[in-house]
Amino acid sequence: MLVANRGEIAVRIIRACRTLGLQTVAVYSTVDKTALHTQLADEAVCVGPAEATKSYLNMTNLIEAAKLSGADAIHPGYGFLSENSEFAKRVVESGFVYIGADSAVIALLGDKEMARKTMQDAGMPVVRGSSAAVQKVADAQAQARKIGFPIMLKASAGGGGKGMRVIRSASELTAGFSAAQDEAREAFGDDHMYLEQYLMHPRHIEVQVIADQAGQVIAIGERDCTIQTNHQKVIEEAPAVVLDENSRVGMLKICEQAVKKLHYVGLGTIEFLYNGPGEYYFMEMNTRIQVEHPITELTASVDLVTAQLRVAAGDLLTQSRPQINGFAMECRLNALTPGTITGLHLPGGYGVRVDTAIYQGYQVPAYYDAMIAKIIVFGHTRPAVLRQMRQVIDETVVSGVQTNLDVLAQILSESAFQKLTTDVNWLDKQLAATSKKEK
Amino acid sequence: MLVANRGEIAVRIIRACRTLGLQTVAVYSTVDKTALHTQLADEAVCVGPAEATKSYLNMTNLIEAAKLSGADAIHPGYGFLSENSEFAKRVVESGFVYIGADSAVIALLGDKEMARKTMQDAGMPVVRGSSAAVQKVADAQAQARKIGFPIMLKASAGGGGKGMRVIRSASELTAGFSAAQDEAREAFGDDHMYLEQYLMHPRHIEVQVIADQAGQVIAIGERDCTIQTNHQKVIEEAPAVVLDENSRVGMLKICEQAVKKLHYVGLGTIEFLYNGPGEYYFMEMNTRIQVEHPITELTASVDLVTAQLRVAAGDLLTQSRPQINGFAMECRLNALTPGTITGLHLPGGYGVRVDTAIYQGYQVPAYYDAMIAKIIVFGHTRPAVLRQMRQVIDETVVSGVQTNLDVLAQILSESAFQKLTTDVNWLDKQLAATSKKEK
Repeated sequence: MLVANRGEIAVRIIRACRTLGLQTVAVYSTVDKTALHTQLADEAVCVGPAEATKSYLNMTNLIEAAKLSGADAIHPGYGFLSENSEFAKRVVESGFVYIGADSAVIALLGDKEMARKTMQDAGMPVVRGSSAAVQKVADAQAQARKIGFPIMLKASAGGGGKGMRVIRSASELTAGFSAAQDEAREAFGDDHMYLEQYLMHPRHIEVQVIADQAGQVIAIGERDCTIQTNHQKVIEEAPAVVLDENSRVGMLKICEQAVKKLHYVGLGTIEFLYNGPGEYYFMEMNTRIQVEHPITELTASVDLVTAQLRVAAGDLLTQSRPQINGFAMECRLNALTPGTITGLHLPGGYGVRVDTAIYQGYQVPAYYDAMIAKIIVFGHTRPAVLRQMRQVIDETVVSGVQTNLDVLAQILSESAFQKLTTDVNWLDKQLAATSKKEK
Repeated sequence: MLVANRGEIAVRIIRACRTLGLQTVAVYSTVDKTALHTQLADEAVCVGPAEATKSYLNMTNLIEAAKLSGADAIHPGYGFLSENSEFAKRVVESGFVYIGADSAVIALLGDKEMARKTMQDAGMPVVRGSSAAVQKVADAQAQARKIGFPIMLKASAGGGGKGMRVIRSASELTAGFSAAQDEAREAFGDDHMYLEQYLMHPRHIEVQVIADQAGQVIAIGERDCTIQTNHQKVIEEAPAVVLDENSRVGMLKICEQAVKKLHYVGLGTIEFLYNGPGEYYFMEMNTRIQVEHPITELTASVDLVTAQLRVAAGDLLTQSRPQINGFAMECRLNALTPGTITGLHLPGGYGVRVDTAIYQGYQVPAYYDAMIAKIIVFGHTRPAVLRQMRQVIDETVVSGVQTNLDVLAQILSESAFQKLTTDVNWLDKQLAATSKKEK
């Protein structure tokens, strides 16, 4: 198995392979020569200089490394080329097993509009939108009545906030329509407008699925990944305790049905916005292992990476939808600056799992993703896990680089986080407020 | 909470207290000034020089430290003073809550003969032995018929192997009795002999119990700790998959009944020799948290240290005997030499728990127990866990001190270990054979 990735996910995959008795090949850029994944694999091949485009994103070098080492299969991990349909295609054309979905399916789901259309046809709920673009306020009112307020008014021709506004009522629509149209015309030379259902306080809920080559699909449970900044998840939890039971069952079922129709094989994650009981809307589907997979592993008692390897090898799923037990939370520990880790104390013991590739003396390179460790706590209930996570984050020490430990501790102490009254915009607003205060 | 211990168990207790919101006080000897438990507690008090008798075993200093720091309770951990009834008594008399059993019960169970007698009266099976010492071979034959062969013939007056032999049949008894008696007479000046049931290939199986102040007792499951050398456990597992279901249910039930009769409060472990279906015999009861508690925590989904603190605080047990799920194995990583840990890579990720107090740069002192980390793997089945444990031990790196990693790897690779055809003497024989070969 060649692992076309680095960091903790490369280590995660190498460990799973070693346990299964599969020989592993790591690839590394010149700055990752002493990285943990490089040391842990049976073999390691340098695939280029530090810049990811020249190494971890360099398809030719990665495939050459696979040939050179006599690998049979390539695992892309997450990030880098993991959702690149061209890479999946070239891997298979070069005679290797690709640990992931078919390249055509990756391409389909990678195109947001096509993915949305396909999933809607497969029965997946999406946010309601205009049946056609409108130019007249009367037509807009008619569409808005169908969609229901609040709505988001958008310029059909483009994004970037131009012509965009949240409209809460018919009178606001009458008052604001022409001004929005003026903005749109000015920005894009086109005054066609588009109306879309607006979610006031959506949460990010996603469903983990796995599908085998015989078309069997299982939804393995859901995760709540509402705590994000700049569209990067920061804290994830499973199960999503805010979900009402009907929504949960409905989401899992509809995911299984939709994925079945796609003839999908492997692990996948379907992301939703959740706006309250019965109101969940498809956003996108990720065709790879997810960063936050450990919280599903702990609550569903499933080794997702091993399961992924098995279905790629043609094994059929033998279990039905697993029972979910307990509660798990993951904090992403990020290095905000590159540098050498001069002191390190990671938590451990009861209920704690850490997935990381760092060690004392490790140099965090400037070139890649900021995440240096995933700190996961598993326990019986959300309050118990939250209590332990606060102690666990408090105990963690990383010297030599700046980290987001203070942000994590702050989030965990916030009553909105504790009471689950957050939404996907909550953390950005919090951080903006904090940075304003500091100025 | 004052934690009257060091190393990983002190860290384990401090973490549990921190999660519960309890302030902690560490105690340390002069060589443990920079130890993890010293750093992790809210406060730390030096209780003496390196030698344990002058620090961790120094009752006066420990109780003074508790007074000095304003502690309310004292947790003894395992080892050191954890089964010292005098310490338990002095702690309570000094006005502190002692996290453990009543001192009178500790004293009772600490006396092996009294413990055996008490537990036998409480319905616990013990190995069959002579009703009275014998001097004549005819009397010995009569006793042996009652006990059943094989038997162990012992000198009543003493131990050390003098006069001791395994006897497999009546003719062996006739042939060997007077020679054994001669040996006994020569060694102890007394030729009274004692006969005891001899177990050919016993396994060490123990039952974890917890009891509250209202007299409720729950057996939380059993552990198989057969892999020992010099009476030190090396690898433990839970559940004990060799046990037949009748024996398992019988052992758990009889432990609950016996402990109830003792008016015991807190955590305890009842150790048995197991010789096959229905043949299990009480050895001793430990009145403290056990080193190998994590494998029970993982398979029974119970936080034993938190549970121990709760029952000590007067909380009543609210659950019945827990469901056991999956399988867990623990390897004790020992430092065979003192020294500074110059390089350290401990395993992590899926299914792995590590309880340790070491870190890179830590100096392993020469004064205390050799164990530096507990490496635990949890999974669905014994074969899966064993496979992962082999990879996990293989992955572990400790530089600067000699460790038993090679012994652990060797045991895991042995077919007798894999097939559970070992007994309590197996590892000693293995090690003796290896050391002979090396000479």
